[in-house]
Amino acid sequence: MAKVGVLGAGSWGTALAILLHDNGHDVTVWSIDPKEVEMLSEKREHVSKLPGVHISEEIMITNEMEEAIKGKDFLVLAVPSIFTRSTAAKMKPYVVDGQMIVDVAKGIEEDTLMTLSQQISQEIPQADVAVLSGPTHAEEVGRKLPTSCVIGAKTKKTAEYLQSAFNSKVFRVYTSPDMLGIELGGSLKNVIALAAGIADGLGYGDNTKAALITRGIVEIGRLGVKMGGKFESFCGLTGIGDLIVTCASVHSRNRKAGYLMGQGKSMEEAMKEVNMVVEGVYSAKAATKLAQKYEVPMPIVDEINKVLFEGKDPKQAVDDLMLRESKIENSSLLWEE
Amino acid sequence: MAKVGVLGAGSWGTALAILLHDNGHDVTVWSIDPKEVEMLSEKREHVSKLPGVHISEEIMITNEMEEAIKGKDFLVLAVPSIFTRSTAAKMKPYVVDGQMIVDVAKGIEEDTLMTLSQQISQEIPQADVAVLSGPTHAEEVGRKLPTSCVIGAKTKKTAEYLQSAFNSKVFRVYTSPDMLGIELGGSLKNVIALAAGIADGLGYGDNTKAALITRGIVEIGRLGVKMGGKFESFCGLTGIGDLIVTCASVHSRNRKAGYLMGQGKSMEEAMKEVNMVVEGVYSAKAATKLAQKYEVPMPIVDEINKVLFEGKDPKQAVDDLMLRESKIENSSLLWEE
Repeated sequence: MAKVGVLGAGSWGTALAILLHDNGHDVTVWSIDPKEVEMLSEKREHVSKLPGVHISEEIMITNEMEEAIKGKDFLVLAVPSIFTRSTAAKMKPYVVDGQMIVDVAKGIEEDTLMTLSQQISQEIPQADVAVLSGPTHAEEVGRKLPTSCVIGAKTKKTAEYLQSAFNSKVFRVYTSPDMLGIELGGSLKNVIALAAGIADGLGYGDNTKAALITRGIVEIGRLGVKMGGKFESFCGLTGIGDLIVTCASVHSRNRKAGYLMGQGKSMEEAMKEVNMVVEGVYSAKAATKLAQKYEVPMPIVDEINKVLFEGKDPKQAVDDLMLRESKIENSSLLWEE
Repeated sequence: MAKVGVLGAGSWGTALAILLHDNGHDVTVWSIDPKEVEMLSEKREHVSKLPGVHISEEIMITNEMEEAIKGKDFLVLAVPSIFTRSTAAKMKPYVVDGQMIVDVAKGIEEDTLMTLSQQISQEIPQADVAVLSGPTHAEEVGRKLPTSCVIGAKTKKTAEYLQSAFNSKVFRVYTSPDMLGIELGGSLKNVIALAAGIADGLGYGDNTKAALITRGIVEIGRLGVKMGGKFESFCGLTGIGDLIVTCASVHSRNRKAGYLMGQGKSMEEAMKEVNMVVEGVYSAKAATKLAQKYEVPMPIVDEINKVLFEGKDPKQAVDDLMLRESKIENSSLLWEE
C-alpha cells in the first residue's frame, strides 16, 4: 500500500484516484476549485465529468495542495496540459528530493516545444518525473472496462514500482524507457484525429480513414525518431493505440471538429459548435514548428495546417495527399539490388 | 497502357479491373464460372458482389483462362485464397518467363504454412510474383473513395512498374521490398479481428479494442520478424492499417463471428449465423503452428485458439490476457542502467 496524491480532479484524475484506491492505496485528491472539492466530498461522484461512478469515502478530497503532496509515496499530475507548468510551479515547495510525479496529461507547449514531463522537470528539478499514457478513455476506466496503458520513466526501478501500483485485473500496465516517444505520440495524435474527422465529414470510407491513421503515425514517428523517440513507441499503445481510440470515438472533440470542417464549416464555425478546446488545432501548430526545426516532411500535418489556417478546401487537401509523388512505404526498407 | 489479365471476378477482382481500365489499360477478366461470365458480360455489373458499380464495355470478360493470360503485360490473381494454388497450377502452361503476377488475396496454407505468393511461385516458377495489400474494402474502391495500398515485389523495377500501373488520384500505391511482411500481416490480422469482435460482443469499450488491436499487431510483428519480415510492415498499411479497417467494419465476417462468440454463442453457432467462411478460424490454427515452429509467444492468438477449439469462456480469455505477468511494452527497448 502506498500513499498517493492525485493533483487535478477532472474525469481522468478522478478515474485514476478510484483505480488506485481499488488497488489498496491511500489516496488524496486535490482540486484547485473549492466548488469541485465540495461536490466531490458531498456527492461522492464527479457529477459532470464522471457521472455514475462512486468515489469511496476513504478517498480524501482537499483544496490544500500541501495535503496532497506531503508524505506521499508518489503523485499523479492530472491537470489539463495548459495548466501543467503553472501547477508544477506551485507544487515545487512541497515536493521532496526524488519524489515521483506521474504526469497523465498530454500536450506540447507551443512556444517552447517542450513536452509536459520536460516542463515539470524544469519547474520541479528535484522530482522523479514519469508519464502514463495509452488508449484510456476515462469513462471506460471508471466503468472498469479492460484497459491497457504504458508507464514511461527514467529508471527501470521507478517504472516497475509505478507499474505494480497501477496494475489491476482491468488495468494492464506495460513499462517503457521511452518517455519522449510516449509523450510525442500522445500529443501529436490529435492532428491526425482532425484529419480522420475531415475524411469522415467528406463522406469518405474506412479505407481513407485507415490510410490517414496509418500514414499519420508514420509521419509522427518519423519526426519522433529524429527527436530521439523510439519507432516502437509510435507503433504501440501510446502511439497508434491511442490514435485508434481517438479516431473511433464519437466523443472526441478533435475528430468532431474535423468532421464539421469536412462538412464544409470553417475552423471558427467548427470550434464554436464543438464549444470546447480542440487540442489538435494547437498541436498542428506545434507539429509544424517541430517539422521545420527537425527538417522532417509531414504531408498530413502540412495539409491540416493549410485547412485550419489558410482556408484550404478539405477535399482538395485530401486529393493533394493522394496525388503526391509516388513513394516507397518505408524509406528504411530498400531492395538489395 | 498495358495489357492486363485479371483472374477471378469477385468483388476485389472486379473493382481492380475497373480501376485498371480507368487508368487506361486494356483489361481482360477471367472467371471460372460461366454464369458469372454471362452476368458480367450482359449486365455490366457484378450484381451480387459489387452492386451499383458499372463495368465498362471495353473490359473483356472471358471463361477461357488462356485469353486472360496470353500476351498480357501483367496478371492480377484475385481468386479466394483456398483456390490460389489450384488456379496457379492451371495457369502455369500459359505463363511465359518473367510474366508478372500480382496476388491480391490473403492467406496462409494450413498444412504447408506457405503464403500465397510462395504457393504461386512454387506452382509457376517462371513467374515474377508480386503482392498488393492494404486497407482496401472493394466496395469503397468501386465507389472511387480515396484508398492507399502497398505493392510488394522482389525487384524495385517490378514494384515501380506495378505502382505506376495501379496508381490513380483515388488509389495511392506505395512500394515495398518486404513481400513476406506484407503477406503475414494481411493473413494473420483476421485472428485479431476475431478477438476485437469478441471484446465488442462482451460489451467492452474502445480501450479494450484498441489494446487488442495494438498488442495484436505487436505479437504478429514479433512472429513476422522472426520469420524474416520487417517490423515496419506490421506498423504500416498492410499490417495495422488493414487490421484497423477490418476491426472497424460492421461487414467483416471475422469481427462478426467474434462478436457473436462474445455474446455467448459457440464457434459452431457463430459460423452458422455468419454463414460464410470465417478466415480467422483457419488463420488462428496457422498462427499457432507458426508460433510453435518459431518459438514466439503469442498470448492473444493462444487465447483465441482456446476460445475457438477448447470451449473457453471468452470473458475468462480476456481476463487472463489482462492478468499475465507484468511486462515492458517492447522488449527491444531497455533502460541503460
